[in-house]
Amino acid sequence: MATGGILVEPTESRRRGGGRAGRRQARETAGRGLGRPFIIRGIPTFDPLSEEGLRRIEAAADTILAETGIEFRDDPDTLELWRAAGAEVQGVRVRFPKGMLREILRSAPAAFDQLARNRANSVTIGGSSVVFAPAYGSPFVMDLDRGRRYGEIEDFRNFIRLAQSSPWLHHSGGTICEPVDLPVETRHLDMVLAHIRYSDRAFMGSVTAESRAEDSIELCRILFGADTVERNCVILGNVNVNSPLVWDGTMTKVLRAYARANQAAVIVPFILGGAMGPVTTAGAIAQALAETMAGCALTQLERPGAPVIFGNFLSSMSLRSGSPTFGTPEPAIGSLVVGQLARRLNLPLRCAGNFTTSKLPDAQAMTEGTMSMLSAVHCGANFILHAAGFLDGLLSMSYEKFMLDADLCGALHTYLDGVAVDDNALALEAYGEVAPGQHFLGCGHTLKNYQSAFWDSGTADNDPFETWSENGSEDAATRANRLWKKTLAEYEAPPLDEGIEDGLEDFIARRKRELGVEA
Amino acid sequence: MATGGILVEPTESRRRGGGRAGRRQARETAGRGLGRPFIIRGIPTFDPLSEEGLRRIEAAADTILAETGIEFRDDPDTLELWRAAGAEVQGVRVRFPKGMLREILRSAPAAFDQLARNRANSVTIGGSSVVFAPAYGSPFVMDLDRGRRYGEIEDFRNFIRLAQSSPWLHHSGGTICEPVDLPVETRHLDMVLAHIRYSDRAFMGSVTAESRAEDSIELCRILFGADTVERNCVILGNVNVNSPLVWDGTMTKVLRAYARANQAAVIVPFILGGAMGPVTTAGAIAQALAETMAGCALTQLERPGAPVIFGNFLSSMSLRSGSPTFGTPEPAIGSLVVGQLARRLNLPLRCAGNFTTSKLPDAQAMTEGTMSMLSAVHCGANFILHAAGFLDGLLSMSYEKFMLDADLCGALHTYLDGVAVDDNALALEAYGEVAPGQHFLGCGHTLKNYQSAFWDSGTADNDPFETWSENGSEDAATRANRLWKKTLAEYEAPPLDEGIEDGLEDFIARRKRELGVEA
Repeated sequence: MATGGILVEPTESRRRGGGRAGRRQARETAGRGLGRPFIIRGIPTFDPLSEEGLRRIEAAADTILAETGIEFRDDPDTLELWRAAGAEVQGVRVRFPKGMLREILRSAPAAFDQLARNRANSVTIGGSSVVFAPAYGSPFVMDLDRGRRYGEIEDFRNFIRLAQSSPWLHHSGGTICEPVDLPVETRHLDMVLAHIRYSDRAFMGSVTAESRAEDSIELCRILFGADTVERNCVILGNVNVNSPLVWDGTMTKVLRAYARANQAAVIVPFILGGAMGPVTTAGAIAQALAETMAGCALTQLERPGAPVIFGNFLSSMSLRSGSPTFGTPEPAIGSLVVGQLARRLNLPLRCAGNFTTSKLPDAQAMTEGTMSMLSAVHCGANFILHAAGFLDGLLSMSYEKFMLDADLCGALHTYLDGVAVDDNALALEAYGEVAPGQHFLGCGHTLKNYQSAFWDSGTADNDPFETWSENGSEDAATRANRLWKKTLAEYEAPPLDEGIEDGLEDFIARRKRELGVEA
Repeated sequence: MATGGILVEPTESRRRGGGRAGRRQARETAGRGLGRPFIIRGIPTFDPLSEEGLRRIEAAADTILAETGIEFRDDPDTLELWRAAGAEVQGVRVRFPKGMLREILRSAPAAFDQLARNRANSVTIGGSSVVFAPAYGSPFVMDLDRGRRYGEIEDFRNFIRLAQSSPWLHHSGGTICEPVDLPVETRHLDMVLAHIRYSDRAFMGSVTAESRAEDSIELCRILFGADTVERNCVILGNVNVNSPLVWDGTMTKVLRAYARANQAAVIVPFILGGAMGPVTTAGAIAQALAETMAGCALTQLERPGAPVIFGNFLSSMSLRSGSPTFGTPEPAIGSLVVGQLARRLNLPLRCAGNFTTSKLPDAQAMTEGTMSMLSAVHCGANFILHAAGFLDGLLSMSYEKFMLDADLCGALHTYLDGVAVDDNALALEAYGEVAPGQHFLGCGHTLKNYQSAFWDSGTADNDPFETWSENGSEDAATRANRLWKKTLAEYEAPPLDEGIEDGLEDFIARRKRELGVEA
């Protein structure tokens, strides 16, 4: 359907993959849907569950906490903190009087800023903010050329470069993929350095051991200055509950290390319904609420007022095969309820993301991913980890899916802006110019608004069938494959102060020697 | 991640593509997420716009109606109806005093039933109901084997068979594709007959001419009996405004023919923002509201109390190429606002669907389709046309996408059920059996609930990477290709009374002779 008329040349600011200059210009251009450091949502959250329903889930969580309790293993200091706070401690099992955790959580901030080394990229986490971060934790990476393989540090760096190049992501993430070519003892140092060197956005640190969390924070002290770190959140640590109802000592020591340094732990149960929690959604949510409240409260016992993020990761499973499933409707609707519960605790929320079990960047991947991602933005999540790249049920980072997902993140900027209803948006002036049966293509109102009117995807093909055929009948994955290569080819690292870089390298060299690994 | 444990054999009722027996059994099985004649939503609508915002859009629509007005061309009877109702008629331009249309619309039912020839498949349209119908109106069809080609009557029949075989669609639709191999004068007769013969669900009739609408209704009188048709809605007619602000005589005559027979017209502006309406979303919505209110009110002037559906079809366009775009964020968020406006008129709603401009059943198709389809269910649409098959921006019905979309419709059954919070769902009993750190796979609560616990996709591959690789590394489109062929191979037509079939054939033969086309 050719409509002719005001067909405009793409301005530099609306092109994708235009390199740093284009991206910068895009981010600096005022207008709907263009890049910005993070999103302030213009639409409400979607709250499907009634007050009565929410109270029933909260009561179930309270019952689990009071009667079953939670085990805190291999961390006597944590048991001592609970005992001092008034919990009932028997061995490693801790039971919580009703209301105790909610009371402790009152000291946690409802929102906080995470500084980026480029302060223009600092993000607010909490309230109406929405921050998109790449996927996290895959052992494998995939692309259409080389298929699936173990992730290496160069892949890790590439995904940081791709994230940094996207106007639609706001955060550099953390363990985007595991760089298995590096020694496990010192891998965290190289990973944090890569985030600092290849991105000027906010990022996440190591959580695999207390000492590695402390190394991550120490690198931030070199980067930001110790005073700044003491007074501001500059790094996040994503800490998992060992569901059901177990907190391992490694995790509690790590979350306390982040809290102690006034940095934000993200407290995340990973419940595969039917395995690590009840097979029913409300039950899985109640258990997760109990586990998360306990983890969040522990950060406040360690350091009252430390920033902390209420996290959740609902999943389901195929009862035919026992495989986990992602992007399915139960977690999508369940995440909305989790959002309601987190807001009643007045805590920043991490929930959902772009999930799929597909092994390819195909129709399944984006059906599941889009359902899951819309749930993330509807539920009011402030920090959306796994916003781009996820494939194969947590196991792979896909170069192509990363580009498709980042593009969806772009569309969600426009979506979250909502519908403006000012006089210009209502457009009544146009009817003075356009009579019934005429078209709006060249009218004044259209000319005044076309540049910011519509989301302009960088991966979709909107051409007529004939044009698309002549151009090779490519599918979206093939276009995404070309796009990530172009983006990497055009990438330039953001400048980093040489003195700071030397300081980071010196610290890392020393730590590697201490840990017995050749620098 | 193999979890072992209660891995169950798929029961017949949970298999897809199990033919009529499987489908019937699926629909008869009580349980979450299984097929049913239509959905009663268990979650609220998502209402992003404030009362003040809604009032501003309504006021803009009222201003358009009062000051610019709408042209009603080539239908003097309609002008006379407006004049008698108190509108200001100048030539073909009709202007409406504020409040007049809302007053007329008070006679339209908020909900009505559309009967199916198998009464177990009758649907309610309005209130909390959600009815999924196939896509509508494509000149082309596509599949992975043969590519794109013009639609023929056998394609038309095939899509009816596929819809009838899906437990996740509720309605047979209308012009699923144009059967261009049939003469245009009598094509409508063969199309309605195909719906009656190959499906026992509710369907839609012709809207290309008043006489064809009347033929469609007459076929229903033969099928249902004239008395039943006089007292019940048995057929829908989807009628388009010629935006901006023009109602063509063909369309008003058709909508009056449906209303006259107590059948439901679906009143649908198709506004490509920037072309047939303002480039801003609120402006496009205000114009659509004006156009739709006028069309709906006209049905009530023709026959007060006739069922009518408030329809909407928002779109956007690529301002680089002038091509229409679908599944983009502006229509997704705009449709939610349209839903809010329709509910304030207390009318059943048709809005959004599964839209895309992709030319393949690929990642783009399902990103756009899923965003668009979630908007359809969030906005409270009661009749969701274009729920399955849509590809290439209205131009093609895809066999593969039809299967993928129908599967998404299945997932949306579970999604719309919301989160149950009864004692069983809260699962507190499970903690008597499962201690911290243990798993829920074999516990009593899981065993009691696993059969209805999770949505079980018929097109997704949830297997581990290795299994998927051994099975040929297929993408979703390839699986869908196999699935539609299997479904067609196993299809059996629902029984149809021979006397009725003869009556339908006799009528059609007579009409073809009258219209000068060989039967």
